[in-house]
Amino acid sequence: MVEHELAAELLGDDAAPASRDVAEYALWLGDDALILSQQLMQWVARAPELEEDVALANIALDQLGHARSLLRYAGTADGRSEDDLAFWRDDLQFRAAWLFCLPNGDFAHTIVRQLVAASFQFALYSALQSSADATLAAIAAKAVKEVEYHRDHAVQWTLRLAGGTDESRRRMLVALRDTWPYVDELFRDEPVIDRLEGIAVRPSALRAEVDRVLDAVFTEAELDRPEVAPSSGGGRRGIPFPALGAILAEMQVLARAHPGVTW
Amino acid sequence: MVEHELAAELLGDDAAPASRDVAEYALWLGDDALILSQQLMQWVARAPELEEDVALANIALDQLGHARSLLRYAGTADGRSEDDLAFWRDDLQFRAAWLFCLPNGDFAHTIVRQLVAASFQFALYSALQSSADATLAAIAAKAVKEVEYHRDHAVQWTLRLAGGTDESRRRMLVALRDTWPYVDELFRDEPVIDRLEGIAVRPSALRAEVDRVLDAVFTEAELDRPEVAPSSGGGRRGIPFPALGAILAEMQVLARAHPGVTW
Repeated sequence: MVEHELAAELLGDDAAPASRDVAEYALWLGDDALILSQQLMQWVARAPELEEDVALANIALDQLGHARSLLRYAGTADGRSEDDLAFWRDDLQFRAAWLFCLPNGDFAHTIVRQLVAASFQFALYSALQSSADATLAAIAAKAVKEVEYHRDHAVQWTLRLAGGTDESRRRMLVALRDTWPYVDELFRDEPVIDRLEGIAVRPSALRAEVDRVLDAVFTEAELDRPEVAPSSGGGRRGIPFPALGAILAEMQVLARAHPGVTW
Repeated sequence: MVEHELAAELLGDDAAPASRDVAEYALWLGDDALILSQQLMQWVARAPELEEDVALANIALDQLGHARSLLRYAGTADGRSEDDLAFWRDDLQFRAAWLFCLPNGDFAHTIVRQLVAASFQFALYSALQSSADATLAAIAAKAVKEVEYHRDHAVQWTLRLAGGTDESRRRMLVALRDTWPYVDELFRDEPVIDRLEGIAVRPSALRAEVDRVLDAVFTEAELDRPEVAPSSGGGRRGIPFPALGAILAEMQVLARAHPGVTW
């Protein structure tokens, strides 16, 4: 039984509220984690091995913990709670990058999404530990240890599927091709980043490290980096991934059906 | 990141395999936990608060951990793995009591099912720690700490719903009435219990303690114990709860679609 109560610890009554720009940035990372968590939870009770059920559920819970910390901090900018932000924004107000919104697909698709997501998050949280914003730095310091495990988990599965049967390798190739258009968006700078010098991590600055990790995995797995045109994406700017509305509908239905009560 | 690897620790190469009767008993408890885990996981990403998402997911993961330990031990009787037992038995071969198979219903139904399940499991694992079977005793010693939290969680929610709004209290009363027919089966002795003196916990011997706990909750919540006729049940004897086939179908579809491969 492990609770993810970091946000509560970090955000005592004396914590400084987030500025509007910091809140926007916290929503980027928090929404990535929240949407990924919801997607991964759909695997649980359906994975092909009980051990994998446990692994995916733990990863989903870690991501949910990070999301809660980040959303709670974002909410300090204007007095909203983590639940307000999770359940009462529509898809135009979410800021998750499209990669995190991709459907689970088959297990190979989920693993490729995890490989990219966790490699990106590991590089990002590693750098964010040095943020001049103490709350973001503390959230990152806790999260980085967990996403390192998520990255290892995805790398191990990538190697296993790429080097497994003909069928598992074929599926891995399909998943790589389907996922890769959504990689570029993760490393795109947006205007808000210029206003958060020393506080946010510049996305473009993470590309080299993430590429280095992915290239090493590809080499060991004897895979080629897919050559596909990047999607325009747009999650950071409120251009929602087409399926995001449906994801949110399922996540939000109960909370919205009974606002303010515990159903 | 917490893994539930108790089973692996307990069942080293030198652990004694379970007898056929011990395996049957381990399936009782393991199937209870496995089915409950699958049911609770369906709440995750749909709960009305992020904090409750986390709580229910953690409870589900604890139950899945207990299930894995118990199924792995049961499998030592005839060389089957935990995955063999989870994914390749049909509803006639499961041994979960019907209470654990009840549908989630609304949140009040889930909480009443949790209240009974966790009170029962807490009393059971408390006693099972003294089992003459070292593996069962060790599994129980770990599980009892976790189900104590599950029981507290259910008690807190029972009080909150019973003492909340008119609507939450009304729903709690409906949930109690719907759930109570399935309580009796938990305390019914079966022939295998007579053959496991000192190893298994006699179900009928747990009734007084569980009733004492439930009565205390009812008193504090100003609820009456429902007066409803007990269901005949029959999960322990392989008479499956009507919906169990559907629950298993969803849980097993992936593993069965690709036997022996990792999809």
